[in-house]
Amino acid sequence: MINIRLLLEYDGTGYHGWQRQKNALTIQEVVETALAKLTGEPVKLLGSGRTDAGVHARGQVANFHTSSHIPLKAFHAGLNSLLPRDIAVLDAAAAPPDFHARKSARAKTYEYLILNRPEPSPLNRRYAWVVREALNLEAMARAAAVLSGEHDFSAFRASGSGSGHAVREVLAAAWHQGEAGRLRFVITANGFLRGMVRSLVGTMVEMGQGKRPPEDLAGLLASGDRAGAGPTAPAQGLFLVKVLY
Amino acid sequence: MINIRLLLEYDGTGYHGWQRQKNALTIQEVVETALAKLTGEPVKLLGSGRTDAGVHARGQVANFHTSSHIPLKAFHAGLNSLLPRDIAVLDAAAAPPDFHARKSARAKTYEYLILNRPEPSPLNRRYAWVVREALNLEAMARAAAVLSGEHDFSAFRASGSGSGHAVREVLAAAWHQGEAGRLRFVITANGFLRGMVRSLVGTMVEMGQGKRPPEDLAGLLASGDRAGAGPTAPAQGLFLVKVLY
Repeated sequence: MINIRLLLEYDGTGYHGWQRQKNALTIQEVVETALAKLTGEPVKLLGSGRTDAGVHARGQVANFHTSSHIPLKAFHAGLNSLLPRDIAVLDAAAAPPDFHARKSARAKTYEYLILNRPEPSPLNRRYAWVVREALNLEAMARAAAVLSGEHDFSAFRASGSGSGHAVREVLAAAWHQGEAGRLRFVITANGFLRGMVRSLVGTMVEMGQGKRPPEDLAGLLASGDRAGAGPTAPAQGLFLVKVLY
Repeated sequence: MINIRLLLEYDGTGYHGWQRQKNALTIQEVVETALAKLTGEPVKLLGSGRTDAGVHARGQVANFHTSSHIPLKAFHAGLNSLLPRDIAVLDAAAAPPDFHARKSARAKTYEYLILNRPEPSPLNRRYAWVVREALNLEAMARAAAVLSGEHDFSAFRASGSGSGHAVREVLAAAWHQGEAGRLRFVITANGFLRGMVRSLVGTMVEMGQGKRPPEDLAGLLASGDRAGAGPTAPAQGLFLVKVLY
C-alpha cells in the first residue's frame, strides 16, 4: 500500500461541503468516486478537515492509501480528466506511510473575501460577500488585531457543532484592502471550529458598520457566549487557502 | 419621453450574448423584459454594442426612451430586484434626448484575462482562459505594442461577420502581469470588429508559446488575411470594461 497526498482546488458552489453525506453530494464523494474508477478499488479519502456547503478551496489537502500500481502522474492528469470542472487536482505526491491529512496538519490558512460596494456584482456573486454599506476597515482591523494568540473560540462556533475543546491558537489574522472595494480577511490558526471564520467575519462586519465597537471582540472571546457574536457571513466568500504540515 | 442611460454588469456565462435573438436567451431580452414589467410598456433597449455568447461586462452601457413617470431610482434598485443575479444595474441616469448608447460612443475598453498555469482552475474557469504552457509575456508585449494607431483589422474579424469597413483606431493596447499567473490584455479602441479581441489574444498567445514570432502581427494586419491569424480565444476570458462618451 502506498500513501498518496493530493492538493485540491474546488468551487464549492454546487456541493454540500467536503465531507461525505448520505443524502447530498459532497466533494469527498466525487473525488472518491473518481479515484475508485481510476484504481478499480474502493478508496477512502482523508481530508485535512471539512469545508461547509458552498465554501471553496484553493489548497485543500487529502490523502489515501492504495495498492494500485498506477503511476503518480495518473493521479494527477488522469484524475483531472475524471473530475467535474469545479474540482481539480493541483498536485499528487507520494507521502510517508504515517502522513494523515487531518492529524498531521499543523495549521491552516483561510481567506474571506468581501466586496464592499453599493451595487450587486454579478461577476463576484459566487466568490465574495457583497456588503453594500461602506465599512470602516480601520475598526475591523482593530478587532482582528485582538485575535492573535491562544483563545477559547466558543463564542464563534456554529451552533450544534459539538461542545469539545474550543481553544485554538491564531498565528496571524488581518484585513487587507484590495482594489475596487475588495476587503480580504486572512487568518492562520492551528485549528478552526466549525463556522469560526464566518462568525468572526460577520461580527467584524458589524464593527465595520459601526453597530458595535471593535473593543467588543475581546469581551466576546472572554464570554464564550455564542448569542453575543454577530451573524454568520455567507459561505461563498470563504476559501481554504493552505494547509501547513 | 425621457431618455435613460443604464450602466450594466453581467456574467455572460448563461447567455447567448447581448443582442436579442429569436431562439436563444440574451441579456438584452432579459433586461427589456424587466423594464417592461417595471414601466408597464414595451421597451426597446439600445446597447453600446453586442457582446458575444459567454462574454462578460463590467460596464456595458444601454439607453431607452420611456414615457413612464417612475422615478429614476426605480430604474436602479427596482430593476435590480427584477433582474436575475447574473445581471445588475450599476447606475441609471437621465441622458440628453439625443444620447444613443451605440452611436454616441467614442471608444470602448475590453479586457481579456488569461490564467497561465499548468493546472486547471475550478475557481477561475468561468472568468479566465487557463493556458497551461508557460507564456513568454515579453513576446506578447512586443506584439501588442504594434496595435496602437489606425489599422485595418480584417485579419482579426470573426468569419461570417460581414465585409464592412474594417479600419479601427486603437488608443491603447498592452499586457499586464498580475499575481499567480494572471495576464491581462487591456485594449481601448474607437470601435471593435466582431471577434477582434479574442482573435488578437489567440494570435498573441501563439507568439507567447513561441509558435510564431511577435513580428508577425504587423504583417498580419497588413495582409488582411483571416486565415493567417491564430485561433479565437475562448469567450469566458473577455470583459467589456468601459464605454467612453
